[in-house]
Amino acid sequence: MFRLDDRLAADTALVDLWDLCEVRLMDDANYPWFVLVPQRTDLREIHDLAPADRLQLMDEIVRATRILEQAWRPDKINVAALGNQVTQLHIHVIARYMTDGAWPRPVWGFLPALPYTKPQRLDVTSRFRETRSLTAA
Amino acid sequence: MFRLDDRLAADTALVDLWDLCEVRLMDDANYPWFVLVPQRTDLREIHDLAPADRLQLMDEIVRATRILEQAWRPDKINVAALGNQVTQLHIHVIARYMTDGAWPRPVWGFLPALPYTKPQRLDVTSRFRETRSLTAA
Repeated sequence: MFRLDDRLAADTALVDLWDLCEVRLMDDANYPWFVLVPQRTDLREIHDLAPADRLQLMDEIVRATRILEQAWRPDKINVAALGNQVTQLHIHVIARYMTDGAWPRPVWGFLPALPYTKPQRLDVTSRFRETRSLTAA
Repeated sequence: MFRLDDRLAADTALVDLWDLCEVRLMDDANYPWFVLVPQRTDLREIHDLAPADRLQLMDEIVRATRILEQAWRPDKINVAALGNQVTQLHIHVIARYMTDGAWPRPVWGFLPALPYTKPQRLDVTSRFRETRSLTAA
């Protein structure tokens, strides 16, 4: 059975459920920052995924980056599978702006996380889901 | 015609030529750090790749991570497409160790780059290529 890592569960909130991945929102209002978590057991590296799941992951990464582009109009998307601290495979998909507080550096460990208020989180979540519905149409 | 970005050309050296990507070595001996550059024009984001090229990119990322695991036995692989400074699409594939100087942080902007000597660079390059030949066999 797939089980989400405790730290990912604490730092993120569920936004959407896709064929392979949970789409989760990082609790950091500094950036529109989402995390894709493949719902499979015992994954650390991308090559641990079965071949068909790797292709599905690529599709879902592309889908997420398109949603972020359309909904947030960022200057750049950052996509990364790091896993130095949380070993369960997860892929960061982050909308970046030349005006954000970490630009042009990567976001990790730069600014202290800025937790969302509940209305903010609901707003980001519905923006993602509405754009996903439009994009799929 | 595909043309490598000037800064990527200055910071990296060619290691191998694959169907889609140039495999290049970052000139930083702090980590076994490779960069995949799809040989296509006008790419900024992963979704700019044609669908078939996206699948090929996933294959080549997996191939690179397997070579790094086999040749360098790292504790973790980091894979990332950032592009905040160099906009031409390129994917970092980095072998990480709990004992490296940036662990558990991401590598970008942490330690000053440590340029390879020529013998070191040739050694890393041949290690990559020999492992690739073994892995393909």
